Amino acid sequence: MKLETNIGKSYTDKILVHGQDLVDDLIGEASLVDMAFMGAMKRMPDENERKMLEAMMVTICEHGFTPSSMSTRFTYLGAPDSIQSAIAAGLLGAGTVYLGASEQVAELLAKAFDKYGDDQNVESIAKLVLDQVEESNTILPGFGHPIHRPADPRTKKLFDLAEELGISGKNITLLQEISKEFNRRKGKEITLNAVGAMGAIYADMGFDHRIVRAFAVAARAIGLIAHIREEIDTGRKNSVGQKLFDFAEENTDYLPERNSGVIK
Amino acid sequence: MKLETNIGKSYTDKILVHGQDLVDDLIGEASLVDMAFMGAMKRMPDENERKMLEAMMVTICEHGFTPSSMSTRFTYLGAPDSIQSAIAAGLLGAGTVYLGASEQVAELLAKAFDKYGDDQNVESIAKLVLDQVEESNTILPGFGHPIHRPADPRTKKLFDLAEELGISGKNITLLQEISKEFNRRKGKEITLNAVGAMGAIYADMGFDHRIVRAFAVAARAIGLIAHIREEIDTGRKNSVGQKLFDFAEENTDYLPERNSGVIK
Amino acid sequence: MKLETNIGKSYTDKILVHGQDLVDDLIGEASLVDMAFMGAMKRMPDENERKMLEAMMVTICEHGFTPSSMSTRFTYLGAPDSIQSAIAAGLLGAGTVYLGASEQVAELLAKAFDKYGDDQNVESIAKLVLDQVEESNTILPGFGHPIHRPADPRTKKLFDLAEELGISGKNITLLQEISKEFNRRKGKEITLNAVGAMGAIYADMGFDHRIVRAFAVAARAIGLIAHIREEIDTGRKNSVGQKLFDFAEENTDYLPERNSGVIK
Amino acid sequence: MKLETNIGKSYTDKILVHGQDLVDDLIGEASLVDMAFMGAMKRMPDENERKMLEAMMVTICEHGFTPSSMSTRFTYLGAPDSIQSAIAAGLLGAGTVYLGASEQVAELLAKAFDKYGDDQNVESIAKLVLDQVEESNTILPGFGHPIHRPADPRTKKLFDLAEELGISGKNITLLQEISKEFNRRKGKEITLNAVGAMGAIYADMGFDHRIVRAFAVAARAIGLIAHIREEIDTGRKNSVGQKLFDFAEENTDYLPERNSGVIK
Repeated sequence: MKLETNIGKSYTDKILVHGQDLVDDLIGEASLVDMAFMGAMKRMPDENERKMLEAMMVTICEHGFTPSSMSTRFTYLGAPDSIQSAIAAGLLGAGTVYLGASEQVAELLAKAFDKYGDDQNVESIAKLVLDQVEESNTILPGFGHPIHRPADPRTKKLFDLAEELGISGKNITLLQEISKEFNRRKGKEITLNAVGAMGAIYADMGFDHRIVRAFAVAARAIGLIAHIREEIDTGRKNSVGQKLFDFAEENTDYLPERNSGVIK
Repeated sequence: MKLETNIGKSYTDKILVHGQDLVDDLIGEASLVDMAFMGAMKRMPDENERKMLEAMMVTICEHGFTPSSMSTRFTYLGAPDSIQSAIAAGLLGAGTVYLGASEQVAELLAKAFDKYGDDQNVESIAKLVLDQVEESNTILPGFGHPIHRPADPRTKKLFDLAEELGISGKNITLLQEISKEFNRRKGKEITLNAVGAMGAIYADMGFDHRIVRAFAVAARAIGLIAHIREEIDTGRKNSVGQKLFDFAEENTDYLPERNSGVIK
Repeated sequence: MKLETNIGKSYTDKILVHGQDLVDDLIGEASLVDMAFMGAMKRMPDENERKMLEAMMVTICEHGFTPSSMSTRFTYLGAPDSIQSAIAAGLLGAGTVYLGASEQVAELLAKAFDKYGDDQNVESIAKLVLDQVEESNTILPGFGHPIHRPADPRTKKLFDLAEELGISGKNITLLQEISKEFNRRKGKEITLNAVGAMGAIYADMGFDHRIVRAFAVAARAIGLIAHIREEIDTGRKNSVGQKLFDFAEENTDYLPERNSGVIK
Repeated sequence: MKLETNIGKSYTDKILVHGQDLVDDLIGEASLVDMAFMGAMKRMPDENERKMLEAMMVTICEHGFTPSSMSTRFTYLGAPDSIQSAIAAGLLGAGTVYLGASEQVAELLAKAFDKYGDDQNVESIAKLVLDQVEESNTILPGFGHPIHRPADPRTKKLFDLAEELGISGKNITLLQEISKEFNRRKGKEITLNAVGAMGAIYADMGFDHRIVRAFAVAARAIGLIAHIREEIDTGRKNSVGQKLFDFAEENTDYLPERNSGVIK
């Protein structure tokens, strides 16, 4: 039995990671986004790919007081000696609801081109995609936003970058066409949100939709450093985690820890 | 290379788990607490051990809106298709701060008997333990409670049970003596809390202090079922997870998801 | 804003959990499976329900050297001071592939009765269900087993118990009919495995399919205690985690930790 | 109640993250390592700090078939629809044993300067540090390596970079002095490993030792992308996760899933 891997190979005098010499070529030379890209693609990104992937990962690093960062702060409150647990807890909620649209959009576009071919004009494909969404009574991923209405400024920024960097291709074109057709059918502008937009960009960069969520999760791990840092800085008593805990206790009739006579 | 284990053994016609036939003797016969006990002790508990361990695990199953259960609810909000993630996130904060005292107390008692012997009277050992805590300027684990003052009703209940079931031994005796001496030195009654008290009971039952936290974590996994059930029942919009998220958003100046013109 | 919960309620002199007094009625009286049942059903189980749920949870507590228990052992190897991480890591792989069939079967049966009604005879419904599985080219959940061929002894044991305890109902009947029809169409006996069978039992007990996986995850948490215990007993160097790590290292050409001259 | 944070601030027309405009200044401009640095330091790194931190994070991104990456592969095997779980499981073992030395070294150095002052010559401090390690019978963190003997090439590379980038300061000097004195006392060269060396570099860069492990965990999240990618590429049956599972099954007498007559 052999555990095969293309990630690296060891020789007596050096070690290759993704085809590069770890000590000579990567440490001090490669960037984190290079490592992320090579992990998914098994080759170094070119300058434009690097810039595009980094822009997308930076976009979702940091999201304020979301369920993700609050789980991290809660976990740090209970297990400050286990920082890896605090980060892991924050990543576990980075699932289908908040970050899933990228891969769902990438998959939707891949399936559309598979089914309808690359030759057909995008207007037709966009209509067929929306017909199918309507018939199957499912939700079109990547659209809608509670605040960014009718446009998400990050979407424009990322699409502009993709254009500028020569990355825009058939997937972005199709998603934009779907967006137009969707607006026509709805009779109003519906936000194409940044997480959805990234799905098309990942697809135009050639990423398999099944790896797409891993970029979001890794980016979020970097963003969570800031939240842990703040919990360290404030100290337990003044931490956001403790404040949220206090808030919960003050707004419930159920305090199992407080059952000996004193109920607010 | 052989992966040795005493957990089970397979034969052509049956499988043994902890020495019992899985299909004939365990399914339909054994209880969850039997499985927990056997996991740690490699033998079935007797009736009294079963009752005592179950009482301790039931005590800490459910704790209301704690960082643990709230991380579970947050994670379910973001990844409702991955219930194992929601439970895991809730367990990750079940660390040193809220549930660590049981093992810390069990270890403290074990070390005290190691160092000072079983023969010395407990009053002397209690004093020596407290002297050392004072000298090393550390915190005495298992004492203090925000609300249960001066007594934690669960502690009395559990110690009464331990007495009734014939489990009380030198560890409970020493912890109670430490409690008395601690009160004398402080000049007031300091709560011996339930999580701390359990440390002495685990020790008198013969559990290694290094496995003690695993019981708390497993018990909490059972308790978290109720929290997930409620998130399912209320639906996303009315869920506690969503309400906590709303609360956080309404009480901060930082809303990265909401940067296009509408800020409170 | 109020954080509503039906899990518990606090009064000045007592605390209710699932409608029971925590100190007087639960600690020392209730079992772990009672807590699990109440979490999902908000009421105490009767004697038969308790026995049935416990039998199912005991069935899946312990599964030997699976990806789940091996992740626990690996995590303990890297973070022995954080037992909650080791258990959480073991639970994270308790997902769709190994434990998902229970909820998938429960959902399949619920949808079948929703769609075809309770009045139609089960033979017809079974055929319609299998027709739909064939048409949609999906996989029938709960069937097949690498070793238990043609029958899983746990399935018989659990169905016998369900019969004996008066729990068997339309869901078990339909699943058994689906099994017969499936065998007819395949021209051979295909194992109805225990995890699949449990889906029908959960459904006949009235559990919502969306909570079903939580029982499996909580049961596994209890089972993992044994694996942690063994890692403690053997010590790092002789642990199964270390042996698996050694095995991996000996069977790969990629050893980034070992790049200074010595490669096998 | 206000949830205070310095991570970001929202205005009607823009959002600041770590003092930068998210859309204008960060997306497309900042790198992942900038985000990591800002999370810990609340300011942009200068060019040298960026290069140093990136070199350290790149060093520990990827480590082959370690407990960490194998837990990720196992978890993906059981829950391929939950990539965040696979990454989280891989991070949970990134604890004290394999990655803890950086923070332990950083803390050791900080305490040494606290206790003995900055004025004393480093030779004296190094001796006092080692005296204390010997007296307290603890382990000197950051030293020793199974293969990199007597020198870890990554240590030299990182220290050279620190020198070149003007980052080397009293912490690196003291750690190198400790290394020399340690060798003298042991009578042979003991490897100062890369993870330990980084502790001194982090300290000279001004990072609080309590945040240091978060960089390792975030770097590892990026490295795990490659392992998930390979599991996707090979497919379940040929995956490394499955092979390790097969290996475990073939090397044990305990196969609870296989109890109906066929035991190898």
